[in-house]
Amino acid sequence: MVLAKVIGTVVATRKEASMDGLKFLLLRQVDTDGKESGGFVVAVDAVGCGVGEMVMYASGSSARQTKMTENRPCDAVIMAIVDNWEVGGKYKYQK
Amino acid sequence: MVLAKVIGTVVATRKEASMDGLKFLLLRQVDTDGKESGGFVVAVDAVGCGVGEMVMYASGSSARQTKMTENRPCDAVIMAIVDNWEVGGKYKYQK
Amino acid sequence: MVLAKVIGTVVATRKEASMDGLKFLLLRQVDTDGKESGGFVVAVDAVGCGVGEMVMYASGSSARQTKMTENRPCDAVIMAIVDNWEVGGKYKYQK
Amino acid sequence: MVLAKVIGTVVATRKEASMDGLKFLLLRQVDTDGKESGGFVVAVDAVGCGVGEMVMYASGSSARQTKMTENRPCDAVIMAIVDNWEVGGKYKYQK
Amino acid sequence: MVLAKVIGTVVATRKEASMDGLKFLLLRQVDTDGKESGGFVVAVDAVGCGVGEMVMYASGSSARQTKMTENRPCDAVIMAIVDNWEVGGKYKYQK
Repeated sequence: MVLAKVIGTVVATRKEASMDGLKFLLLRQVDTDGKESGGFVVAVDAVGCGVGEMVMYASGSSARQTKMTENRPCDAVIMAIVDNWEVGGKYKYQK
Repeated sequence: MVLAKVIGTVVATRKEASMDGLKFLLLRQVDTDGKESGGFVVAVDAVGCGVGEMVMYASGSSARQTKMTENRPCDAVIMAIVDNWEVGGKYKYQK
Repeated sequence: MVLAKVIGTVVATRKEASMDGLKFLLLRQVDTDGKESGGFVVAVDAVGCGVGEMVMYASGSSARQTKMTENRPCDAVIMAIVDNWEVGGKYKYQK
Repeated sequence: MVLAKVIGTVVATRKEASMDGLKFLLLRQVDTDGKESGGFVVAVDAVGCGVGEMVMYASGSSARQTKMTENRPCDAVIMAIVDNWEVGGKYKYQK
Repeated sequence: MVLAKVIGTVVATRKEASMDGLKFLLLRQVDTDGKESGGFVVAVDAVGCGVGEMVMYASGSSARQTKMTENRPCDAVIMAIVDNWEVGGKYKYQK
């Protein structure tokens, strides 16, 4: 899984029918200090998160292992909202 | 999923039989401002889009989760045409 | 799928039994002008192509969606020979 | 699989229900000398390891081939703790 | 598939039970001249090769399409030992 920040929302009316009702969020990867520093990806929200939150997302076929994304052309899913992480005994990010 | 712009078309007469009738589009990834800036990929069109449109595509096995691409050697599919996206409360792209 | 040029052949006598009889080709990715510019990959030929031809290949589990590669440890397959592609209304490559 | 060092822990209370009870570890890839030098990833621990240990992780659908991660939206799993590795007849890392 | 050289061995006593008995080899990717130049990966040996040999490996779910790796958390498998390859009518590598 990859740590990322929710930085925006994407609207797409015309889409594969099975994607109807899903929420698309724009994510940017962060480094271990929580700074935005990596690439961008659009992920389906499976946990009810909002812009500004720090999340984890899963890619590839693993992104289809939720009820919301099963059998759908979805290759990235937010599967957790992050409370905190610790490196070397210190919190690097806290909600 | 990845945001990309449809920049061209690809024609291939001789191909794996299961790919007959599919439309191949050339996509270039865009940044969060909608500028072409990333790599290129050829994707199958599952939503009826055209050159110049902003789309989302799914990769890997997720690219086979549409009726059009099921069980086919297709690893990238356009599964949505993008209307707009918003970052920091501002529209960064509008159709 | 990715656009690539067939630049060579690979011979491997000792291999997983299920790979017997398959032809391994060395591919180099090309840019939208058809110039060799990207990485290298070895792909199984599912369409009967030869050195020098411009092709498309599929990666990952999608590379196993042909009769030739089904259930085999193959992660890249040439699934089409490219006739031409067009960007901005101009042919960038023609066979 | 990729060699990596466990450098931290990630806590996420709100998550896809199927991920309950799993331990999320923050890994950094190492080079062949065992120095941290590559990217970061969050992986589920399937072997009971701790911060500071050198491990191998598997990605993609292969990350779901453990009892702990089966059918879950998990795309990276620690599937081994590394004792040592050898390059050119010399140990480059020993536990 | 990717061309790589076997440069070392990895020992891991504590691991996911299904990985027992598998041999882990450290591979480095090579360029088309056979020079070590790319990234490193740990792969399971499905063909009985040794350090110093030039091989091909398959990644992702395709790495599980051998009897040895089926249903295991393995994302890279050596599925062939390379005899030679040719680019532009010249051997670039011969065993």
